[in-house]
Amino acid sequence: MEGSPTRSLSPAWLSYYVAISQILGLTVITMAGVWMGQYRGGIAWTSSLQFNVHPLCMIIGMVFLQGDGKLGWRCFQAGSDQSPPCLPGLTPLLAWCVKWLIAVFEYHRKQGYPDMYSLHSWCGIAAFSLYFVQWLLGFCFFLFPGASFLLRSKYKPQHIFFGAFLLILSITTALLGIMELLLFSIKDKYSSFVPEGILANTLGLLLIAFGAVTGYILTRDEWRRPPLAEEMALSMDFKTLTEGESPSSSQ
Amino acid sequence: MEGSPTRSLSPAWLSYYVAISQILGLTVITMAGVWMGQYRGGIAWTSSLQFNVHPLCMIIGMVFLQGDGKLGWRCFQAGSDQSPPCLPGLTPLLAWCVKWLIAVFEYHRKQGYPDMYSLHSWCGIAAFSLYFVQWLLGFCFFLFPGASFLLRSKYKPQHIFFGAFLLILSITTALLGIMELLLFSIKDKYSSFVPEGILANTLGLLLIAFGAVTGYILTRDEWRRPPLAEEMALSMDFKTLTEGESPSSSQ
Repeated sequence: MEGSPTRSLSPAWLSYYVAISQILGLTVITMAGVWMGQYRGGIAWTSSLQFNVHPLCMIIGMVFLQGDGKLGWRCFQAGSDQSPPCLPGLTPLLAWCVKWLIAVFEYHRKQGYPDMYSLHSWCGIAAFSLYFVQWLLGFCFFLFPGASFLLRSKYKPQHIFFGAFLLILSITTALLGIMELLLFSIKDKYSSFVPEGILANTLGLLLIAFGAVTGYILTRDEWRRPPLAEEMALSMDFKTLTEGESPSSSQ
Repeated sequence: MEGSPTRSLSPAWLSYYVAISQILGLTVITMAGVWMGQYRGGIAWTSSLQFNVHPLCMIIGMVFLQGDGKLGWRCFQAGSDQSPPCLPGLTPLLAWCVKWLIAVFEYHRKQGYPDMYSLHSWCGIAAFSLYFVQWLLGFCFFLFPGASFLLRSKYKPQHIFFGAFLLILSITTALLGIMELLLFSIKDKYSSFVPEGILANTLGLLLIAFGAVTGYILTRDEWRRPPLAEEMALSMDFKTLTEGESPSSSQ
């Protein structure tokens, strides 16, 4: 994001924005639960209701927990430098567990449905694969003690960009899933503005709102974690090295 | 985006990334044209083919031109300060014209289909309404001579954030539209991996790739437009004013 010459929001506002994001996130989870419970017959680990675990768990894991993992950077910025990475480190693990707990592939097999043909499933598998790569690289660069400070500093902006990209891709995949489920289950009634369609459409808009508020918090300059003293020093050294042709070129 | 302590990409790389984004954007437009031409019977301003103008024009206007309008900020950063806003200023106008040229509502009326019931249409109308508001506010703050410099500086970060948000929302809406069209036109054959389904799914993934490359260019610190001297001076004055309780509090 472009830097702002003036800083109009005080750090105290962060709490309000985080509160709004949490209300939106919990509303979205509740609405997904109501949709599955009220209109799709509920959830179960066996029978045809096994499929209904998928939308609920994916919204909890890949949207709400992933978003909150990133917000952890802002909420815990007053703590030590070592504590925040644990949140994004743990969150994908949780989401990953949730992902494998749900049994959409098993449900497809039982019902004789083919796998992986729709745009929703292509986006979903791309999001999940890239998420796993991001988690693995994040673990290697930030938690593994062997990575040098310079290497971490070079990788950090990529990690942050792909973190934001994966949250957006996860929300997009969720929206595609809502659309797919609606057109498979209530295609003929959808255009009559039936309550299920309105509930699912509203759920989609609230998912976008959750993404927007989370993205707004993460991109505000005012709420950035201030760089550590050694990061600043290294940045200056690196700048000196790269702006000249070589350390001796300015002599 | 979080600031990077090291700057690993030289400004010269910007050209390569912009080239990749343009190749992706033009590929996406071509694929949308091929989809409509090869599998949906082509486009026309009358008859039932009128509907097919919608996907093609929306991808050109709301995705490609909108993305390129934002990239104009990076590509023309070497020029005068007044030239770049014309690009984002013109682009929504073009997209707006394209939007109203397409006749999806008229097509619905002719065919007797109801309007505005699906998640795709809800997201689309939200994106377009907010886009128009963004364009109007951008015009008032940046092109209208009455807005003060301080007011512009305060609004600028919001304009940039909502610009990025609207591009993402437009791409998401396009993906929902692809999903909806596929499930309305080839629902029974979709799971057999027919060429039309694969083409449309690939188009969806390339739309995401276009958004990712554009977003990457826009969020890299290295490629930001350097702030003007008066912006820097105002920023310092504003900081002095806001950090103390009042100008006299530090005395």
